[in-house]
Amino acid sequence: MKNIVTIGGGTGHFTLLLGLKKYPVNITAVVSMADDGGSTGRLRDELGVLPPGDIRQCLTALSNSSETLRELMNYRFEKGELKGHNFGNLFLSALEKIKGRLAKGVEEAATILSVKGKVIPVSDKKMNLQIKLKNGKSIIGEKQLDHNKDVRKYGVEKIYLKPKVKANLKVLEAIKKADMIIIGPGDHYGSILPNFLVTGVSEALRNCRAKVVYNCNLTNKKGQTENFSVDDYVASINDYIGDERIDFVVFSGTKPEKKLIKKYEKREGKGSIVEFKKDILKKRNYKVIKADVLKRTQPKKNKNDIIANSRSFIRHDSDKLAKVLMMILEMDEYNNLIQEII
Amino acid sequence: MKNIVTIGGGTGHFTLLLGLKKYPVNITAVVSMADDGGSTGRLRDELGVLPPGDIRQCLTALSNSSETLRELMNYRFEKGELKGHNFGNLFLSALEKIKGRLAKGVEEAATILSVKGKVIPVSDKKMNLQIKLKNGKSIIGEKQLDHNKDVRKYGVEKIYLKPKVKANLKVLEAIKKADMIIIGPGDHYGSILPNFLVTGVSEALRNCRAKVVYNCNLTNKKGQTENFSVDDYVASINDYIGDERIDFVVFSGTKPEKKLIKKYEKREGKGSIVEFKKDILKKRNYKVIKADVLKRTQPKKNKNDIIANSRSFIRHDSDKLAKVLMMILEMDEYNNLIQEII
Repeated sequence: MKNIVTIGGGTGHFTLLLGLKKYPVNITAVVSMADDGGSTGRLRDELGVLPPGDIRQCLTALSNSSETLRELMNYRFEKGELKGHNFGNLFLSALEKIKGRLAKGVEEAATILSVKGKVIPVSDKKMNLQIKLKNGKSIIGEKQLDHNKDVRKYGVEKIYLKPKVKANLKVLEAIKKADMIIIGPGDHYGSILPNFLVTGVSEALRNCRAKVVYNCNLTNKKGQTENFSVDDYVASINDYIGDERIDFVVFSGTKPEKKLIKKYEKREGKGSIVEFKKDILKKRNYKVIKADVLKRTQPKKNKNDIIANSRSFIRHDSDKLAKVLMMILEMDEYNNLIQEII
Repeated sequence: MKNIVTIGGGTGHFTLLLGLKKYPVNITAVVSMADDGGSTGRLRDELGVLPPGDIRQCLTALSNSSETLRELMNYRFEKGELKGHNFGNLFLSALEKIKGRLAKGVEEAATILSVKGKVIPVSDKKMNLQIKLKNGKSIIGEKQLDHNKDVRKYGVEKIYLKPKVKANLKVLEAIKKADMIIIGPGDHYGSILPNFLVTGVSEALRNCRAKVVYNCNLTNKKGQTENFSVDDYVASINDYIGDERIDFVVFSGTKPEKKLIKKYEKREGKGSIVEFKKDILKKRNYKVIKADVLKRTQPKKNKNDIIANSRSFIRHDSDKLAKVLMMILEMDEYNNLIQEII
């Protein structure tokens, strides 16, 4: 079986893994430890644990356990002190405390949840994201990206980690052995790029033999990826990796419904839908795959159904995305297997 | 998920299903009830049960249970009265007796074995294969094909069933709903064609909307498919179905090792390796896919390992075959999903 490493964030990573796990591939999901908002941020602050939120989403996506157990992982308390906490986050934080290390706790959780593949924190240390704005000012903490007004006003210049943290060795091994590395979808500054700042990761990416595929985000964020085109995302990622490492970029050639676009534009301003501008570049060192990977809008079923809830957002379609990625993965093999068509 | 119906026989069917089950597809394996040789034949004669052998192979291939349970299903007793019997055959015959019908017993077995997909006997009645030889003489029983010297001497003219038997309704429903029907590999006269003789099956095949793919056998049998080319197999199957129903034929463009060819030629005569003769036909109503689907020869590990044992035979490779078939299945969808490559 071929080895796939995924580097994503939040619901984007969940969506990606949900589709991929149906195929005969070995999956290693790498998760940033920079998250410090919401339920995750509270646990990080109060218990001193590593951020469990994105880990939880990956474990749930790759779980082959009963639907009830998977629902339980995403269950969010609605009242009292626990309000806003996910059951799954508490479960992972408790396991980290028992086992002494998040990575060990995640292994235990993976067994309990019958997880296909591996989920690995990119580092054993928590990451403090430093955000330098275009006005020269620096702010600290991933959650600032979405909550600090200066981000929207001045825009992000660059991000870095302080202190520096080392990569989990298992992540570097997985990258070395990978046949394909899939980056995105996920928050660009909040989830994707922080991984490349962890000492050892970018170097491993520059030196590995894998095909690197980037699933371009569908929407831009004001002050962060404002007006980014597909090529801007690729350039930014290559920049943080330190080489023109992306071989393929997959972007949605299907436009979202008008009322959804309006909803996003109201919040993020004009140009909040990522576009591919063909003529902006004369030459690209990567193939651009324009594909129908957009999730069709469907009515909600119940408020705890994480998938149904995502239907009123602009999201990737798990199965379509996985199909396109599997085609990219197997492309060369098909060419080798098929000797002639008569 | 797409619906796939497979019509095969023996180890060929096992090999096919072992590869296919790794993909996100709904599989229904249809099994002929004409087998009357070996352990299966003894149970058929002595207990009056339907032939369990091919059912067992399909269940084992599709099973997600422990390796021990799967080994147990294929375990062959070596001493005493039970010598030659497979444990799995006894298990299925006992379940048939308890449940009153083989189809019911198979459902029960499928649950116990955590089977992915469905395995369905083509008919609830046992099938008596009538074999008309080219010298005008008729003989009765599937096992005669490989054991009656007249078959090798005179050759098979045609086969038919007497009495006629009706198809299991679930088989007809599965064919109607199928996106792809995969025929072969498997014994041509012994396993594949008998299915088309069951009342209702050929009609369902003629009228269904599925793509029909034929995995051409790798080797010919003296007196049966002697000197058959790829196109001869297709013509014979279309003939029994009663329409030019095959859309794709997959054949191995890789030649087996010389010593293996010699072994087969010693038993089956010259021309025992199936060849594709491109110029024999000016026009074909099916696409011929020449592909590298041959299993590489590897050393045996232990005598109960059914896969290892097949390595000294000319066989298909499960994973390669499944990959080619999945490509054929998804071909149109890829064309729909991929809008442009830039």
